[in-house]
Order: sequence, then structure tokens, then C-alpha cells
Amino acid sequence: MDLGMIGLGRMGAGMALRLRRGGHRVVGYDPDVHAAAQATAQGIETVDTLDALVAALAPPRALWLMVPAGAAVESTLEVLHPLLAAGDTVIEGGNSHYADSQRRAAALAEDGIGWLDVGTSGGIRGIDAGYSMTLGGEAALVERLQPLFATLAPSAARGWGRVGPAGAGHYAKMVHNGIEYGLMQAFAEGFAILHHKQEFDFDLAALADIWREGSVIRSWLLDLSAEALHRNPALAGIAPQVADSGEGRWTVAEAIALDVPAPVITHALIARLRSRDGDAFGDRLLASLRGAFGGHGVPQRGETDP
Amino acid sequence: MDLGMIGLGRMGAGMALRLRRGGHRVVGYDPDVHAAAQATAQGIETVDTLDALVAALAPPRALWLMVPAGAAVESTLEVLHPLLAAGDTVIEGGNSHYADSQRRAAALAEDGIGWLDVGTSGGIRGIDAGYSMTLGGEAALVERLQPLFATLAPSAARGWGRVGPAGAGHYAKMVHNGIEYGLMQAFAEGFAILHHKQEFDFDLAALADIWREGSVIRSWLLDLSAEALHRNPALAGIAPQVADSGEGRWTVAEAIALDVPAPVITHALIARLRSRDGDAFGDRLLASLRGAFGGHGVPQRGETDP
Amino acid sequence: MDLGMIGLGRMGAGMALRLRRGGHRVVGYDPDVHAAAQATAQGIETVDTLDALVAALAPPRALWLMVPAGAAVESTLEVLHPLLAAGDTVIEGGNSHYADSQRRAAALAEDGIGWLDVGTSGGIRGIDAGYSMTLGGEAALVERLQPLFATLAPSAARGWGRVGPAGAGHYAKMVHNGIEYGLMQAFAEGFAILHHKQEFDFDLAALADIWREGSVIRSWLLDLSAEALHRNPALAGIAPQVADSGEGRWTVAEAIALDVPAPVITHALIARLRSRDGDAFGDRLLASLRGAFGGHGVPQRGETDP
Amino acid sequence: MDLGMIGLGRMGAGMALRLRRGGHRVVGYDPDVHAAAQATAQGIETVDTLDALVAALAPPRALWLMVPAGAAVESTLEVLHPLLAAGDTVIEGGNSHYADSQRRAAALAEDGIGWLDVGTSGGIRGIDAGYSMTLGGEAALVERLQPLFATLAPSAARGWGRVGPAGAGHYAKMVHNGIEYGLMQAFAEGFAILHHKQEFDFDLAALADIWREGSVIRSWLLDLSAEALHRNPALAGIAPQVADSGEGRWTVAEAIALDVPAPVITHALIARLRSRDGDAFGDRLLASLRGAFGGHGVPQRGETDP
Repeated sequence: MDLGMIGLGRMGAGMALRLRRGGHRVVGYDPDVHAAAQATAQGIETVDTLDALVAALAPPRALWLMVPAGAAVESTLEVLHPLLAAGDTVIEGGNSHYADSQRRAAALAEDGIGWLDVGTSGGIRGIDAGYSMTLGGEAALVERLQPLFATLAPSAARGWGRVGPAGAGHYAKMVHNGIEYGLMQAFAEGFAILHHKQEFDFDLAALADIWREGSVIRSWLLDLSAEALHRNPALAGIAPQVADSGEGRWTVAEAIALDVPAPVITHALIARLRSRDGDAFGDRLLASLRGAFGGHGVPQRGETDP
Repeated sequence: MDLGMIGLGRMGAGMALRLRRGGHRVVGYDPDVHAAAQATAQGIETVDTLDALVAALAPPRALWLMVPAGAAVESTLEVLHPLLAAGDTVIEGGNSHYADSQRRAAALAEDGIGWLDVGTSGGIRGIDAGYSMTLGGEAALVERLQPLFATLAPSAARGWGRVGPAGAGHYAKMVHNGIEYGLMQAFAEGFAILHHKQEFDFDLAALADIWREGSVIRSWLLDLSAEALHRNPALAGIAPQVADSGEGRWTVAEAIALDVPAPVITHALIARLRSRDGDAFGDRLLASLRGAFGGHGVPQRGETDP
Repeated sequence: MDLGMIGLGRMGAGMALRLRRGGHRVVGYDPDVHAAAQATAQGIETVDTLDALVAALAPPRALWLMVPAGAAVESTLEVLHPLLAAGDTVIEGGNSHYADSQRRAAALAEDGIGWLDVGTSGGIRGIDAGYSMTLGGEAALVERLQPLFATLAPSAARGWGRVGPAGAGHYAKMVHNGIEYGLMQAFAEGFAILHHKQEFDFDLAALADIWREGSVIRSWLLDLSAEALHRNPALAGIAPQVADSGEGRWTVAEAIALDVPAPVITHALIARLRSRDGDAFGDRLLASLRGAFGGHGVPQRGETDP
Repeated sequence: MDLGMIGLGRMGAGMALRLRRGGHRVVGYDPDVHAAAQATAQGIETVDTLDALVAALAPPRALWLMVPAGAAVESTLEVLHPLLAAGDTVIEGGNSHYADSQRRAAALAEDGIGWLDVGTSGGIRGIDAGYSMTLGGEAALVERLQPLFATLAPSAARGWGRVGPAGAGHYAKMVHNGIEYGLMQAFAEGFAILHHKQEFDFDLAALADIWREGSVIRSWLLDLSAEALHRNPALAGIAPQVADSGEGRWTVAEAIALDVPAPVITHALIARLRSRDGDAFGDRLLASLRGAFGGHGVPQRGETDP
């Protein structure tokens, strides 16, 4: 099939290449000329404007957005929407909030333009392993564009599927990432405990390798943990600051909105916030309070851990 | 090799059968005659007493304990220890506390009896898939008994290994289970959020299947979740009470003892405690307090959720 | 001073009475004729419409809203706003979201109408003990209306004050309630531990009384806990379901939005969600999973706790 | 009454002085000659050895231990026990584990020596405000020594009492401190949120003062928070490292042992561990993992927060 790919960063370029390998024609566009040039160098056909992209595809067109969630999706759609015709389809493969996807689907539908939101997982290694994809939108559209998903997925029949109407694909991805936060934090805590058990002087990478086969916790994130620990056993030089993108926060907000207790996913997020809290105002208040009622010495900046 | 297997429950019998398939000779013993009879029916050679078990094996003997952690291990070793000779080896494959294993190893060593503690993961499906095993004890012993581990493990060279001195194998297993609690809780929370998002009416089993291929959260526990949701999509009839065995508790205690913050593993345990807290005294106090200062109605037993 | 009190529920009527005792003239209004009648019976002057309320006060008027946050405030202001004149002041004493208060202040300011948001704490007992009040709005307005606050507060000079511009009073109250959730949960957990330590058979009410004097944890919530435990030592008949109003949720959302780790306040909220989670889908999935990999029995509805 | 006070640190010396003011005779002892000299300078009668202390008191003697929990209590009792006679009483006022107190009470009882464990709260300000005390031991002993407690407590009849047999006094204190951790953390989080809401530029000390009167969260810890924030509004120079003594850990362990979910108390402890976790191995592993699957840049030590 023919596809226009908007956004040629690590994820977008990887998907374009995997589609090309699968026999599809992909025309790419990225507002960042550097990214576009890199994609061209990798053999991807690119154009310089959204107009040119739309012109390069025969109707009914399929346009895949793979740009950062938020302002970039919004501004892209502002330009793209008027260029499209009834029967065209916008596929949003980024990490947008599901309510934004519902709103965008409705706006495009007013002009007869189709919509699919795709919760895409697998990361930068998906170019070879395939991408896991949860799709939200009309079943007929999913069926028509099936060849694209069959190529992008790990296998033609598995690792992808429609999960509901517009918004459902991104909702599922949001929860996927919430789960991912919890899984990552569980592994991080476990390896931290092992690391601090100096008595046994564990070789963490070797231990992780053992668990990769046959254990209850075998998983791709364990595979990656093993790799990371082989590469840098002491994790030397890495700053203990863990970023978070919106999806963990949205999952926590959704859980609360639905009255669902989700302590572990929530704590995985809070642990990331704490990792970046250079101010630690609350901890300083606690240290001060302990001095006030208990007569304990108040630790001063520059002192070592009391 | 020859091996005496003490404990012929689901795990012990499964290991005995896998070893037999691999060409080893296994003599089994279980104080529960019903369990012993079942094992015999499965083709495992069994004896009626620990004396008979020791007599049935030529020195240097290898005796594998696969009995419930705690009192059962303690009482078995009390009887077994005097029956053994220098050069024999006790292999403890259950979920004992690592400090107990260190103590037992030292006691046996006084009589020249070897010790290996094996943190065994994989559950009841290990009979076919193999067991993941972390070994604690002397390297020379591990090397001598290597054929047993090569057969029990998912593959001869992978999924098992020595991770340190006596105790280290069980320590690693303890942390493994702590991680497992965190992973399970993360999946449980994620699926609960999806279940409660009635707007999308997700088919959870189908969604889990998509993620099993290519997603960041692909894992054996996700495979099992998918199976569970296919088997019983509404989880009908299942009581929301989650048991915990000692290893989660020990992991939490170790984390605190080592000053390692482990909020997610800890919360996975607390969530299990909460699931079984029929009394909920604290919640009742809170409901009463809200009435006291806010004039809110205090919910009464038998009323619906306020 | 003269004041119009809109909303004559437990809080509004209590404030009206305390103001009257302090020598102020209060005209009350409540759309619920039952509430209005009750207030009249308590000696509060009431009128039947907002028009009548505005007519009953001489400009510049002060109108205090004490109605449920959300739709009630919004619809009241829709009617009230056009009735007011430049120089009048709206005082919003409920538990509105601070951003709503900022928006409402700006809308009224366009017509020269003043605004104060008052974070009111103290509950239904404030009628005698006084109300703690954090004020958001212009300093000049606070100064002009000072006599009202001096009467409502526990003492003329303490327990109330301006904390910032419009919105700040409600923001402070939001955080106050977040802290309150954490304090309440800490007490609830502590008393639950004591309750379950059957070996000591503690008299919880007597124990709470001891702590009320001189201990580090002495506090009004401890006073209330002692009262609750004296009244009903076993908390018999009270359902373990703890409601939450918006402010705890908003505090959690704000903490995340500001990248501030707030695990305890967050968990106090999650514990309330859990107390009302009759479905417990996640726990049922966990129980099912344990059966799948460990061969553990899956508890069935109607069985006792495993 | 006459009392021997063993341990003349901040707490022991304060109690000795309060008892003297109340008309009791106190003979003090501290193995640290510096502490003893300071107490002497404050007007406390001191002796140089435990022998001298016992000799200075007429039977039946009352000896109050106010030394650090753990080894100091153990070694003091080893020396003291043989010096005492049937009818004497040991009062342990420190923060010992309740099970140690039960064991010590039983050992002393074999020689007819009485025991009271006193959970003492109030901190260093108790010298003026009085100490809150929960007593474990025989009721007859409590009655006999009542004059001491009446003087030490905030008032003769309140703020102290017997709560159960030996061990119960320290058990109650343990839970008191667990609750205290939760309360402190709730305040710390609330003030941290306010501190980071730059838009409102709150004066935290002034805000705390408002809440001290009439609010639901009024409490001694809020009073101390207000003082701390007046003294040092930015908490400048204070290191964000919060120590913990055993009682928080024991409360968490007890909650788990009793199957009582205590997420807030537990998290208050974990937050303290995190505040001192200079290694943050888990966070570094997470940062590394994010790079591995998402292609995100891995933050390096020395870089600013990503």
C-alpha cells in the first residue's frame, strides 16, 4: 500500500523502513530538515511540505502521524486537515491523550476523513522485532489498511488489533505505559536490593541472565535490564534522574477518576518525581522538625548522610 | 546421576519426572503416603522412609529437599542429618529464608556434608518448560552436580547458575518473588483500569494477546494474564483475596534493613494484605471521623457504597 | 456588618449564627425551602430569592456563598452576577477548585465586583470553636470585611488571614484537606494495628486519651478519634467505606503537576478508593494468576479468607 | 518519692528536673561523665556507679532507665539486675522493642523484681509541658508509683496511664511513633506542594499559623512546623536527609505480621529511606532502561535534571 509518514524521528523512520521492507511505498515528511535528510539517506522517499506529501499520494490517502504528542500533533493537523479529502485517513501513532484523539476523530469525521489511533509499543527496536499496536477507530478502516499493520506488527496476524472506537487505541497504550512504569520500578527495586546486599556481592547481570529463562519474571524488560547491567555493571556515570512522559500521569489520573486503586502504578510515577526532586523541601522540613521535638541534630548541606 | 527427592508435591514430583526423562535415576520420598502413591503412579521410584532413601543411594549422595519452607524443612533435616555421611550433599530447593539456609549449611558442614540452596522459579509448568534456578553454595559442588541442573533448567547452559555462597541462592529467589509481586500488581492494576473504562468495553483477553507480541510489557506473567482472561473474562466467581507466602514479606524486610526504598514491591504486598482485610478497622474509623467533623453521614453495614 | 449568606446547610447556617452572635446582621437564602425554614427556625432572617437577598442589603454588598462546590456555585453565580453592582463583593467559602475561583474572580472583576475565596476549615463544630480561614483576593477587600472574619475565626486576630490573590485561599484549603487525608489515614492505620494486637487487648479510647495530653501526636483529629472510640469502641455497624470529596484528588493532581512527590497524601486517597472498591477486579486477577503459575487454589466467592 | 534515674541525656535529665520540681528526690547516674557533670550543674544529685545508685536508695527502690534502646539497655540491665532485691522496680522509659521488654520483665520477675515499660512521648519540651506516658506492667506497681507519673505527666490525672501488661507500654509507643511518621510526612508533603506553587508565593509560616487555630489539622506537629518555618522560611542550609530510629521500622514490621495494611505509615518510612539513598541504584537502572528501549538520552552525572 501507499502511506504518507509524517514525522521521521527514531520511531517514524523505523516504521517507514519496516514498511518499505514489506513492499509498501512510503513517502515521508518531517518539518525538521535534518531528520528528513537522515531519512533520505536511509533510502526513504521524502518531500518538503505537507502539501507535497498529500500531492504525492493517490486518494484515498493514508497519512500516519508519528510526531511528539501535544502541540506538534495539534499544529500538524491544523495544516493537514484542510489538505485532505473525504475518504482519506489519518492514523495517529504517537502517545496522544485518548480524549484528544476522540476530539480529533470527530473533527475529521465532519469532513468525511477517517481516523485511527494506534497505541504503538516496542520502542526503537521495533524496526526489526515489529511493533505492538492497539487500534482505535472504525472496523472497516482497520480492515482496509490491514496490510500496513500486518507488516509493522511482529507477525501478520499477531501483536496488533482493533480494540475499540476512536480513542480506545490510545487509551490502551496509556494503560500499557502505566503498567510499564510499574514493571520497571519493580525490577529497579529488586536489583537495588541485590546491589546493596554486599555480603553476597552478586553479579547482577549474570543473575538477570539466569532469570531470563524459565523464571516467573521472564520478560522483555528483564532482557533489557540484563543488557544494561552487562554493558555497565555499576551503572557508573548515570545520573539517578528518571524522566516521565505524560502517559504515566494520565494513567494515574484515570485510575483516580474511575475510583480504581492503583498504588503500584502511582508509586512508580511518584518514585520518578522523587528522583528529580532536587529541592526536597519536605525532607528538609522533616529534618528540621526532628530537631525541634527530639533534639536530634539537624543535618546541614555538605555534611554526609547522618 | 542418582538423586534422592524428598517431597513429592506438585513441584517435587514435577522435578523428579523431568530428571527421569533426562536419564537420571530418582528415588523419591514423601511423608504423606498419598503424595508418595501418586508419584509412584506417575512412575517415580519411591521409598517409605528417609532411612530407606539414604540406603537406596550410593555415596556420595545427593538429596534434594522440596518440602514447604519452615517447620517441614527443619524437621526433615533433623532426621536426615544424622543419616548422612561426609561427602553427601543436601540441596534445598524450596522457598526458605536465606538466613536459615546459611545456618543449615554451617551445621551440615561441621560433619563434612555439602549444601546447595536453589532458588527455584517457574512454577508447576516447569516440568515441561524447565526450571529457572539460582544456586548458593560451593562452586565445586555445583560443578559436580551440574548434570542435574542442566536437565532441570530450560536448557543445559542457560536458566541456572551459581550466584554466590550458601544462602545466596535463596536470597536471589526471595528478591525474585518480591519483583514478581510488583509485576503482578502492575498488571492487575492496569487491567482493572481497563475493566472499569466502560466507555470502551474492552475485550481484555484480546488486548492482552496483542501486547504479548512486540510490546514493551511482553512477559510470561502477561501470557498467564491473557490465559486467565480468556478462561474467565469476567473473572466470575473468584474471590478478591490474594494470599502471600513469606518471600514478599522478607523482601520488604530486607529492603528496609538495607535502607533501600522499595515502594512498589512494598505496596504490592500491602495490596494483598488489604485484599484479605475483612475487618477494615481503620476504614471504619475514618468513616466515623468524617461524620464527626464534617457532619457527613456514616455508612452503615448493609448500606450500599455512599 | 451586613452580610448575605447564600446556602444555609450545616456550614452556612452555622456561620450565620456565629456572625449574628457577634453582632452582625445576616440575611440568608437557600434554594432548598427546607433548609431555609430550618434556618428561620434558628432565628436567621431569610428571604426567598436571590433578588430579594440583594435587595435586602445596602451597597456595597457582601454576599457569602456556602453551597456545594461545582455546579451549585456555577449556577448561583450565573443568577447572582447580573444582580450585583460595582463595589459589591462575592465571598466564596466552599471547597471550590482554585482555578474555578480564579476564573470567577476575573469574570466579576470585569464589572467591578470584588472577590474573596475563603478556604474554610473546622467543620460543623466551628459554630462554637470558630472557623479557620485562608483568604484569597485583594488586600483592601480583606481589610474592609475584617470584622466578619474576626467574628467567624476562633479569635479576632488569629486563625484567619489573607494568603494571596484570588484563588490562593482555595488552593491553601485544597492542600489543607490533602494533609488532613494523610493525618486521618495515619491515625486509622495506627489504631488498626493496635486493634489487631489481640495479645494486649488495648482499650483504644483510653489509649487515645493518654496521647491527647503531651504526646507528639496530640491533635484535634486525635481528639475526635478518642471521641469516636469512646462512643463506639468496636466501631460496630459502621461500614468500611470512606468517601472522598474533590480536594484530596486535586491535591494529588497538583502534586504531580508540580513534580512534587507526595506518596502519603496520595496513598491516603488510594486507601479510600480501595475501601469502596466492591469489584476488586485486580485482586481477582491476582488470585487467578497465582493459581495459574503456582498451582495454588483459587479462592471462590463465598469461601472464607484463604 | 525517691527515684534513681539511669541516663541523664536530654530526656533523662529533663525528667529528673521535672520530678525534682514536683518534690521528689531523684538520684541520677550516667556512664558518660560529661552528661553526669551537666546534670550535676543543673542541680541533680548524681552518683558515679550503678552500685552507688542502688546504695543511695532505700528499698523498695524504683530505678528509671532512660538510655538508648538496644545495647545500652541490655548492658545496663546486666549490671543492674544482680544489684537489685525483690520488691525493687525497674522502669524502662526508652524506645525499646516491646518483645525485649517482655523478655526483660520475665527475667526480673524470676527474682521478684518489678517491671514497668513506659512509652514516653513529648520530646525535649516535656520538661515544661509534661510527658505523655503509656505504661505496661502490673496494675499494683502502677498504683504504687503513681506519684511519679502524676508529676511527670502534663497533669496529675491525664496524659498517662496503664495500657496493659509488660510490653504493652512500649508497643503503644511504637505505634505512636509510626503514626507520628505518617503525620510528619503528610505535613511535609503539603508544605512542599505549597512551596512549589510559585504562582501564589505563599508565606508558609503565616499560613501554618492560620491553620493552628480552628482548622481540622491543628496539632502540635503543625505548631512545630510553623515555628520551623518562621525560624528559617526557606529551610536554607538544611540537608534533605531524614533519619529514622527503630520504631517506625518496627511498626511497619508489626503491621505486616498482623496482616494490617498500613500504606501511609509504611510510606512515611520509605520516604525517609529515599531521602538518604545517595546511591539510587534503582533510579540509575531506570534511566538506563529508558535509553535502551525508548532511545531517550541517558542523563549523566553532573548534568542538570533532564
